Amino acid sequence: MSSQTFLIVGLGLIGGSYARGLHAAGHTVWALDRDQDALDYALQEGFIQRGAVYDKELVSGAERVIFGLYPRTMIDWLDAHGGDLHPEALVTDVSGVKRGVVEAAQDRMAPGQEFLASHPMAGREVSGVRSSDAAIFQGANFIITPTGRNTPQAMEALRALAEELGFGHISVLTPQEHDEMIGYVSQLTHAIAVSLMNANDNTHLREYTGDSFRDLTRIAKINENLWSELFLANRDILLGEIDAFAEALGGLRAALAAGDEEELRRLFIQSTHRRRIFDGE
Amino acid sequence: MSSQTFLIVGLGLIGGSYARGLHAAGHTVWALDRDQDALDYALQEGFIQRGAVYDKELVSGAERVIFGLYPRTMIDWLDAHGGDLHPEALVTDVSGVKRGVVEAAQDRMAPGQEFLASHPMAGREVSGVRSSDAAIFQGANFIITPTGRNTPQAMEALRALAEELGFGHISVLTPQEHDEMIGYVSQLTHAIAVSLMNANDNTHLREYTGDSFRDLTRIAKINENLWSELFLANRDILLGEIDAFAEALGGLRAALAAGDEEELRRLFIQSTHRRRIFDGE
Repeated sequence: MSSQTFLIVGLGLIGGSYARGLHAAGHTVWALDRDQDALDYALQEGFIQRGAVYDKELVSGAERVIFGLYPRTMIDWLDAHGGDLHPEALVTDVSGVKRGVVEAAQDRMAPGQEFLASHPMAGREVSGVRSSDAAIFQGANFIITPTGRNTPQAMEALRALAEELGFGHISVLTPQEHDEMIGYVSQLTHAIAVSLMNANDNTHLREYTGDSFRDLTRIAKINENLWSELFLANRDILLGEIDAFAEALGGLRAALAAGDEEELRRLFIQSTHRRRIFDGE
Repeated sequence: MSSQTFLIVGLGLIGGSYARGLHAAGHTVWALDRDQDALDYALQEGFIQRGAVYDKELVSGAERVIFGLYPRTMIDWLDAHGGDLHPEALVTDVSGVKRGVVEAAQDRMAPGQEFLASHPMAGREVSGVRSSDAAIFQGANFIITPTGRNTPQAMEALRALAEELGFGHISVLTPQEHDEMIGYVSQLTHAIAVSLMNANDNTHLREYTGDSFRDLTRIAKINENLWSELFLANRDILLGEIDAFAEALGGLRAALAAGDEEELRRLFIQSTHRRRIFDGE
């Protein structure tokens, strides 16, 4: 990909990791962030060339824009500053939920501009630009969620970007398909980990916890502002996933309460079989 | 610890790992297993010196006995062969549940013999002596669950054994305390992982699963015979833990359904705080 100028709006963990990766790939990287300290850090580290809390020249001068903001904040930003974007800007995001967000962002593009949504499935249990690291993208999933308003050219450009940054698997889903998938593999798992941690004050059991418990609760350390927004943005699907899980757990509970050893064995055999498929066995 | 003769009854993953560790520490190791192939393997590998499906001479000749059997099978074995044990045998087990098991085993000891229960909190997602490995004990928890019928001498001997095998943390709990702890940190987590895997046939989502999902479902690969027995042996406590977890998940669900962003944030902050304590932060 020939050298381009990228504007990162929101220089946190993910935005910062994009900035680092794009800089390493030889692109020019500018950034906006409400926190001057984050900008100073990135300028000093040298992985952005210019940065500001707001600068109309940066906004209008970049043909490639990546929003590293929370979904609602991105829409608010577009309402306030969308008019300053480059007339042919290709814009993408990093949002973990797509329904509602994608259409809203596309509604705010002028003719000639294009918003093509994507979701880099990467992260860490820490936040902020100082924790950013382009290595989190290596081998990760990159999901593009186009609508009827997107062009093949934009698809191709985003695909090339993902390849350049080292993503391992690039796929295309509708916003609905994306949100259904994420409701199960990500949001439900976080809801479970949080509830397991909150079920009792079991911190006195700390010395007895083995790998299983630690694995299940690692993601119970969670950014409360981001995840409450993502959960609510995907409310209907996540409620359905929680209910399906609760029903499965209720089935296991009923077998246990009834002393039904055969049914317990059947449930364990089924889960083992399915998990083996996930492991490619 | 001076060299002793240990009899391992049940040469599976855990029994085999004990055999390897004891052999490496310079002890004489004998083994009984219903599977001649497992014995042949261990004899060939050289980490047991003698082995048989049953041999009265091995049973009566060893002052140290470790049962690597499932709880019910151990009690059945004691009913059939307990009379052959060395008159001063010190016997322990590896059972993941203690109530019911410990008293039943102690009832089957003659005067001069002693059953002191213990639980090595170690394992793998595979089974059988060919997967055994003394390294699984390194740094793991070793729990001793004495009753009023146990002696300080036996406690000391078992403690020395655990230290010799490299366990990282040795603790003493009553059978009730043990089962309450295990109901939460181990059995509930397995019930959750199994139910998450069984909630839907989501195997088509395999390509989208990241670390979180894989971490939460790793233990959904589960030995159905062992775990159905352990779940039922701890039924009352596990039912209570499932209910406490379901209530916590229900609380999160209610906040989500009501669009209560503040309550969601509170739950996330609480889980993050507790998980940090587990990490020693």
